[in-house]
Amino acid sequence: MSVTFPHGFQAAGVVAGLKPSGLPDLAMLVGDPGTTAAGLFTTNRVVAAPVTLSRARLAGGRARAVVVNSGQANAATGAAGESAAHATTDAAAAVAALAPEELLQCSTGVIGEPLHLDVMLAALPALVAALSPEGGEDFARAIMTTDTVPKTVAIETASGLRVGGAAKGVGMISPNLATMLAFLTTDGAADPHMLQGLADDVLKPRFNAFTVDGCTSTNDTVLLLASGAAAAAETTDVGELADALAQAADSLVHQLIADGEGATHVLLIDVEGAGDDAAARAVAKAVADSPLVKTAAFGKDPNPGRILQAVGSSGADVDPGLLDVWIGGAQVAAAGVIPPSYFDAGGDLRAAATAAMSGPEIAIRVRLGEGPGRSRTFGCDLSYEYVRINGEYTT
Amino acid sequence: MSVTFPHGFQAAGVVAGLKPSGLPDLAMLVGDPGTTAAGLFTTNRVVAAPVTLSRARLAGGRARAVVVNSGQANAATGAAGESAAHATTDAAAAVAALAPEELLQCSTGVIGEPLHLDVMLAALPALVAALSPEGGEDFARAIMTTDTVPKTVAIETASGLRVGGAAKGVGMISPNLATMLAFLTTDGAADPHMLQGLADDVLKPRFNAFTVDGCTSTNDTVLLLASGAAAAAETTDVGELADALAQAADSLVHQLIADGEGATHVLLIDVEGAGDDAAARAVAKAVADSPLVKTAAFGKDPNPGRILQAVGSSGADVDPGLLDVWIGGAQVAAAGVIPPSYFDAGGDLRAAATAAMSGPEIAIRVRLGEGPGRSRTFGCDLSYEYVRINGEYTT
Repeated sequence: MSVTFPHGFQAAGVVAGLKPSGLPDLAMLVGDPGTTAAGLFTTNRVVAAPVTLSRARLAGGRARAVVVNSGQANAATGAAGESAAHATTDAAAAVAALAPEELLQCSTGVIGEPLHLDVMLAALPALVAALSPEGGEDFARAIMTTDTVPKTVAIETASGLRVGGAAKGVGMISPNLATMLAFLTTDGAADPHMLQGLADDVLKPRFNAFTVDGCTSTNDTVLLLASGAAAAAETTDVGELADALAQAADSLVHQLIADGEGATHVLLIDVEGAGDDAAARAVAKAVADSPLVKTAAFGKDPNPGRILQAVGSSGADVDPGLLDVWIGGAQVAAAGVIPPSYFDAGGDLRAAATAAMSGPEIAIRVRLGEGPGRSRTFGCDLSYEYVRINGEYTT
Repeated sequence: MSVTFPHGFQAAGVVAGLKPSGLPDLAMLVGDPGTTAAGLFTTNRVVAAPVTLSRARLAGGRARAVVVNSGQANAATGAAGESAAHATTDAAAAVAALAPEELLQCSTGVIGEPLHLDVMLAALPALVAALSPEGGEDFARAIMTTDTVPKTVAIETASGLRVGGAAKGVGMISPNLATMLAFLTTDGAADPHMLQGLADDVLKPRFNAFTVDGCTSTNDTVLLLASGAAAAAETTDVGELADALAQAADSLVHQLIADGEGATHVLLIDVEGAGDDAAARAVAKAVADSPLVKTAAFGKDPNPGRILQAVGSSGADVDPGLLDVWIGGAQVAAAGVIPPSYFDAGGDLRAAATAAMSGPEIAIRVRLGEGPGRSRTFGCDLSYEYVRINGEYTT
């Protein structure tokens, strides 16, 4: 399971002492020589030092390993933070006998707090010593912050290619941000250009299509590494690999959203009939991020007016006279009109919509018209627990 | 006080029976013949029938009165809703001896639920009979939904011009939307073109600069009526009138945000040094709408990382290396870096920031650089009570 399910990878996760909790907080993943890498990074203008470092090294084309720490995000730390990121990777590379350019870095934790560099450096020998082809689960645990469970995936294709993955995020601990980190590995063969194409085309739309609270972290990173170590690697079929990556990403996204802060329901928002996919995404995200829709989901209240309100304020070019909306199988708006029978006490339509709000997954479908654009976006409800996790403490 | 403080206006508010609560739910405001009107309407693509009606009649240039109902929003009601809006204003005009084109309409309440037209029509004679120059307070009460207090304002300028106002919103009752309605009156003289200019230049930036949950209603409306009935009306100075309108709008916005759903703190977000005002507004709104900033405010937790995160993801062209942030008087980020001393246990900087989070109003200032763009935006925190109001019921 996890990132070491594909051949050609070793991983480890140890307790360095970066987090007060004493839980594992330092992780490493290394691909065999020849491994290629691709990445996706946060669109936030405020970018953590490890993101700057990793983005530059990926462009260099030699990266095949990553060190991940939780505890400090190393964001808003200025030149000192940049130095600390380089010092970490330089030291880890030396211990692991890698070139510094082969090593990427991810951090998650408190924004602004200086990286505990001495603690990091002291733990690196034990981290490197623990690297093993069975280390994937330890890796997945050491990258967690307030995630309640590790998120991992392992897929094998018909021709024997493997895809593995681990992710964290969407749990926040005071005063941390919900940095989302995801690591996908494969033992298929892919040159860096092809691998970045797969990251852009297959991973990006999936990791951009879920939202817990609409906040983009300073540290969000998705890395994809290909070792080419599978027996069938020489004949890697890009379509087959793309399908396996899509499955793996879908699984990780599902696991992340289900572990969203305080989430009691997963929202599955399907938008269709838009002018293009971007317009569909804008509408889906507006619905998924609407506090009114999210609190209605928490209250199990089918509320078509709140969905229409979110659609109309999405910024997309929406014709309100064409809007059809379903909650589960219940059509709660047709051609922009909520059926008057919806407001009948004890009516069937509301009963059906209410039933569709009661399960762990709530499906909302919005049809905007006859256009080709569509989007599927995952969200979650807004509960007391979200407010508690993010608000109920004072420093 | 309220909308009848200026000369030349009559108003009323009565119990029609549109709301199950039995509280006043039907209001009317009429200006003397010669009164001019201007308006601002929701930018939501999904627009209520009364908004469509009022927007068209304002364009006609004769409007001088408005009927307002709470209980049903008359949105997402299709052609039947359009007919109901016209039937209401036609009947009210007949009873009040006005031309239908002189009458505007606003509705707030449940989206999709058909307007209770028979109830409205039956109550119109009593409503018109109650019109009085002392009716402003009744008007302000009858437009409330879950507002806990009426919001009114009365201002007299040095030359004796008066501005009055009433507003509602930012309280939601299941399953209503937080429609914001604001009505401003003056006994200064202004032709419709000048009045719309004042609405656009003075009122619009103010009513667009506060946010409770980032949601734009289907019914949001601001109306401005000028009766020209003041003794000094003939020499109305547009600058003096603009100043008085600005004061009145600021007062109403303050009252609205302080009564925001579940709000325990008002956020005052000042952004300066942006490339232009639009960029400053985007940054201010991103901070004010960030669930992470809002929950931190609820928890009285000074959290510069969350503010930087929101600024960076605002979509504005931000240089992270130039960002200065203050919470109250405490500078918690300088040139994009959170001072390491901020993380010292018991340090002075964090103590000062914490103190600034403890009052009813929390001031956050963000400097983006040396540009001329600036914005002041009001927000509020995200509390358990917000989740309760909007989530804790099932139908």
